[in-house]
Amino acid sequence: MNKPRVHIARRMADIEPFHVMDLLARARRLEAGGRRIVHLEIGEPGFPTPEPIMEAGRKALADGHTHYTPAVGLPALREAIAGFYRDRHGVDVSPERIIITPGASGALLLVMAVLLDPGDQVLMADPGYPCNRHFVRTFEGQAVAVPVGPDTAYQLTAEHLESRWGNRSVAAMVASPANPTGTLVPVETMKRMLDLTTARSGRLIVDEIYHGLVYDDEAVTALAHSRDVFVINSFSKYFGMTGWRLGWIVAPEDYVRAIDKLAQNLFLAAPTPAQHAALAAFRPETLEILDARREAFRERRDFLLPALRELGFGIPVTPEGAFYIYADSSVFDADSQRLADRLLEEAGVAVTPGLDFGHYRPEAHVRFAYTREIGELEEGVERLRRILD
Amino acid sequence: MNKPRVHIARRMADIEPFHVMDLLARARRLEAGGRRIVHLEIGEPGFPTPEPIMEAGRKALADGHTHYTPAVGLPALREAIAGFYRDRHGVDVSPERIIITPGASGALLLVMAVLLDPGDQVLMADPGYPCNRHFVRTFEGQAVAVPVGPDTAYQLTAEHLESRWGNRSVAAMVASPANPTGTLVPVETMKRMLDLTTARSGRLIVDEIYHGLVYDDEAVTALAHSRDVFVINSFSKYFGMTGWRLGWIVAPEDYVRAIDKLAQNLFLAAPTPAQHAALAAFRPETLEILDARREAFRERRDFLLPALRELGFGIPVTPEGAFYIYADSSVFDADSQRLADRLLEEAGVAVTPGLDFGHYRPEAHVRFAYTREIGELEEGVERLRRILD
Repeated sequence: MNKPRVHIARRMADIEPFHVMDLLARARRLEAGGRRIVHLEIGEPGFPTPEPIMEAGRKALADGHTHYTPAVGLPALREAIAGFYRDRHGVDVSPERIIITPGASGALLLVMAVLLDPGDQVLMADPGYPCNRHFVRTFEGQAVAVPVGPDTAYQLTAEHLESRWGNRSVAAMVASPANPTGTLVPVETMKRMLDLTTARSGRLIVDEIYHGLVYDDEAVTALAHSRDVFVINSFSKYFGMTGWRLGWIVAPEDYVRAIDKLAQNLFLAAPTPAQHAALAAFRPETLEILDARREAFRERRDFLLPALRELGFGIPVTPEGAFYIYADSSVFDADSQRLADRLLEEAGVAVTPGLDFGHYRPEAHVRFAYTREIGELEEGVERLRRILD
Repeated sequence: MNKPRVHIARRMADIEPFHVMDLLARARRLEAGGRRIVHLEIGEPGFPTPEPIMEAGRKALADGHTHYTPAVGLPALREAIAGFYRDRHGVDVSPERIIITPGASGALLLVMAVLLDPGDQVLMADPGYPCNRHFVRTFEGQAVAVPVGPDTAYQLTAEHLESRWGNRSVAAMVASPANPTGTLVPVETMKRMLDLTTARSGRLIVDEIYHGLVYDDEAVTALAHSRDVFVINSFSKYFGMTGWRLGWIVAPEDYVRAIDKLAQNLFLAAPTPAQHAALAAFRPETLEILDARREAFRERRDFLLPALRELGFGIPVTPEGAFYIYADSSVFDADSQRLADRLLEEAGVAVTPGLDFGHYRPEAHVRFAYTREIGELEEGVERLRRILD
């Protein structure tokens, strides 16, 4: 029997893997050979899931909570999230508008699938989280990458929306704080973008998955300004539940039924033990742990940021949240991929080259993640100093 | 500020909710009012997750396994699944070809996204699992529903593929055993369909999620006949892990890299505690429990099938697996939806009307699920007898 032709959908040509995976694999090989590597590339905090959530997870198993939940999630968890918006943000969000998803990934997937017809455009910042454009492409939409730089804190602005919004534009997407830059969208800009998308019969999609991790101000949810926005959030980053795969959408009321229907068909439901565990995420004792961790992240940033600047990396905008620093590395090498290779080989320091975040000047940038303890950051900086000074 | 226009993607008009949810909601209301309802509509076994898997899940939490795994899954779990194919089926499958997914839902999503360009066709049986056509529609493909009846045991045949395969056909999909009919694809038919799709440069996608639940013969995996087939499987049904959300794909080698890339972007990974728990799924002590459960399902089928036939339901093909009986109910009512309403209201028995499984004669059929204990089945039959006799 002959081998059949390999028919792979055209979209796959536009969907890139996480390029850092190759570098990570090389790092692992070096480690297997006995070398110690300092990991400044990993976008996953080293902290374990907070104990009250673990305890609730163990109790969920003990109580036999292993069957399907409703497609939109456990009613008690939707209520708990509504309570969090009320208590922490002073914002009234009906639990009916909250849809529990398998990670923020599942949330992005549902929102794009519900919004996009083939050819529909979504405006987004470049650099940005690469999966965003891939979600759009997956559903045959067109991601319009808007090059952004330090002048707008690497964020979209209302002016970008005005100049780039076209006939086929149906949504714009922002992340605040953003990956890879850690910058926020200022409140006034957010309001103007909400007004603008509404006026154009479009939608703003706001990724707030790093929302709990903001160091200088309290972050303001876009839900404080609008009921017509899509907000994406997650238990992964701030709540320390990466591997549990749990996130949520707050959707405008008119989209809830369509999203429910799609979630039934595409996911059935989010993982049940994770949903029960997450019920403990908003308890005071958990929030106390999380706020202590936020302080630890702040200290790491406050160490790493000036240290990298002193080494000569260009960081014109202070990252205010998440656990990333996006740095201009062109003074060391015009090719950030080559630089990342050299840093790994010569210094034993892993960083993420800009290529993983888009096509606007990736070769001039690398991303540092401060997901590891401060001692490791110190050693990383010391190693970098030895070869870059 | 005006409300923006509600722009919902056209695909959503073609994606139906699970219609049985409305009936289920009515059943819950009756129960809240004190009525006892016999549930013959639920596609989720009442059995808890087997204790060795629970134990492994608890250990995973105790060991702090709550961080991301690789996108394609834990290496040890991919190895364990390969071992299961070797030991149980005598088939050699490289672990490299096994991709762990968030449920079989995640598996279907990845396979359709990797295979389908807009307008590409996938042939499938009607009646069938409704999400299949919705996955195809989600990625702008076209599901070609082939009406099937008792003459082919409600399954596609090589003749169907020959007559319905067109220029835009890229795949055919079969489920063995199938939902809602519980029927198998005979080995010779499977081989012919594999040859035929290969000869036409297409692919066969075989859903084997009910594979462990076959009562008269041992089920033969399509992997025994071909390395070019996509096989979908799941820890939900046979392994009793519905709420954990874990499944897998065995993909042809040439598709693995594309699926990996897509899984990174769309899911990041399947839930980590679930993956560690599933490592215990193939242990002898677990398989012993599962085989005892299979015997229980067989007994239930062997009770329910003749009882329904005696009541007058038309069941011309004996269901050989899964936990479903698809019955012609037209002797009682030409409208199975109306019949289901009446059975719920008058007899307190919930069944699923045919509408949830496609558009070929749904009004003449209902689906019975034997996911509950035999006592409940007996009571259900007794209640039906009282109003249908």
